[in-house]
Amino acid sequence: MTHHDAQPSTDAEQSSNATLPHILICNDDGIEADGIHALATAMKKVGRVTVVAPAEPHSAMSHAMTLGRPLRIKEYQKNGRFFGYTVSGTPVDCIKVALSHILTEKPDILVSGINYGSNTATNTLYSGTVAAALEGAIQGITSLAFSLATYENADFTYATKFARKLTKKVLAEGLPADTILSVNIPNVPESQIAGVIIAEQGSSRWEEQAIERHDMFGNPYYWLSGSLQLMDHSMKKDEFAVRHNYVAVTPISCDLTNYAALAGLEKWKLKK
Amino acid sequence: MTHHDAQPSTDAEQSSNATLPHILICNDDGIEADGIHALATAMKKVGRVTVVAPAEPHSAMSHAMTLGRPLRIKEYQKNGRFFGYTVSGTPVDCIKVALSHILTEKPDILVSGINYGSNTATNTLYSGTVAAALEGAIQGITSLAFSLATYENADFTYATKFARKLTKKVLAEGLPADTILSVNIPNVPESQIAGVIIAEQGSSRWEEQAIERHDMFGNPYYWLSGSLQLMDHSMKKDEFAVRHNYVAVTPISCDLTNYAALAGLEKWKLKK
Repeated sequence: MTHHDAQPSTDAEQSSNATLPHILICNDDGIEADGIHALATAMKKVGRVTVVAPAEPHSAMSHAMTLGRPLRIKEYQKNGRFFGYTVSGTPVDCIKVALSHILTEKPDILVSGINYGSNTATNTLYSGTVAAALEGAIQGITSLAFSLATYENADFTYATKFARKLTKKVLAEGLPADTILSVNIPNVPESQIAGVIIAEQGSSRWEEQAIERHDMFGNPYYWLSGSLQLMDHSMKKDEFAVRHNYVAVTPISCDLTNYAALAGLEKWKLKK
Repeated sequence: MTHHDAQPSTDAEQSSNATLPHILICNDDGIEADGIHALATAMKKVGRVTVVAPAEPHSAMSHAMTLGRPLRIKEYQKNGRFFGYTVSGTPVDCIKVALSHILTEKPDILVSGINYGSNTATNTLYSGTVAAALEGAIQGITSLAFSLATYENADFTYATKFARKLTKKVLAEGLPADTILSVNIPNVPESQIAGVIIAEQGSSRWEEQAIERHDMFGNPYYWLSGSLQLMDHSMKKDEFAVRHNYVAVTPISCDLTNYAALAGLEKWKLKK
């Protein structure tokens, strides 16, 4: 069994010109999520699309990868047509397997999403959607992550329009090394979008982190739970901006070094 | 069933003075790993210790947390003595459940490890050991992650000595907000340790990311695999320093914003 990115497409929307950019699409909600279908449809107007996504939902999987068991690749059809490939693992697994065993060329850009729920503030660290894009950046691929700030009544109309526009801009301009754009879009009609803010990752904390329940034997078990409490209230911060109907575009780095802290630590003069 | 951090200890090494710092210990290799036992023994000379660790190994789980199923807490004994608590989830789950349902006070410091294998360069993003410490920082707890740069013949003698010394220093000095120290220690005797370097996260890439095999039906499956290729060769970078027998102390931030990229993106003048 071999895999090719140049699948014969029967989809009239699919751009087939080999000179068009090749766009790798992934997500963390899984290949059945509406968000990835909306994104793929939009991206087929920008270039050649290959979808590689988790077979099952993998929200909050962060940069997890699968070491303890093997992975399977399957072709996935929608309405009787080839749509893309599923991998039986995490979003990061998808990128690794796509680059090593599905694609026959390095893609021009990786686009992850569209995620259900914002990936802002502290959620940036938990997000599989963002992690897939960071994995792309690690592999030297220009990468974007898109999230829609809602868990219900998702309307991808404006989000896909903005994603298409920004993807074209990034293909033209490029991005700094080791850096992705994490894009969070309010779930409102275009007329209510206040504008676009180049944003910083906000601070947030989850209140009430786990709730306790009891099973039929009276033994306790715990569900992770809680609500996101914003720690900063500035329009420069991603979550605050999105809550005020701005699109937040945040440059996220896969270099986690706190460079500002280096000088202070040097003064400790640590010895072995 | 209730949980208390002030377990009646029968361990003569356990410091019992309530004025001593309270140290929360976690890891990603699971509660049976030698590294967490070595670390707990060392930390009992610094303060009061509570161990909360995954019941099973969770290497490469990054900042994943468990949303789709409930978690269980169990007491774990070693040689007939209470050692700590297991949580049936990821390292990040452990921290969340420890703070919400095991500890009755906020710990003074969180110490994660000692991990088998370095958590340097790109592996910083994949590491559950680092993620547990970052989760501590998000919760406002001073946090450290310790890793020993080997997968075999681990000798924790020097690593635990350095961990004890650094933990005392950090308890005295504190750390910048939203920042942990990720500490990587060579697996050599103290006499061969070249010194301590305040390091930056290096760049690296995994070569050959997944290998293909075939099952008894001839169908392919894939194991994530490969070797870490260093992209930079400077003693200021964590992995390079460790490979040259330096202890690397790297300040790692849970704010992933690439601030240097903000001005360039502003020039794009993105419109909605």
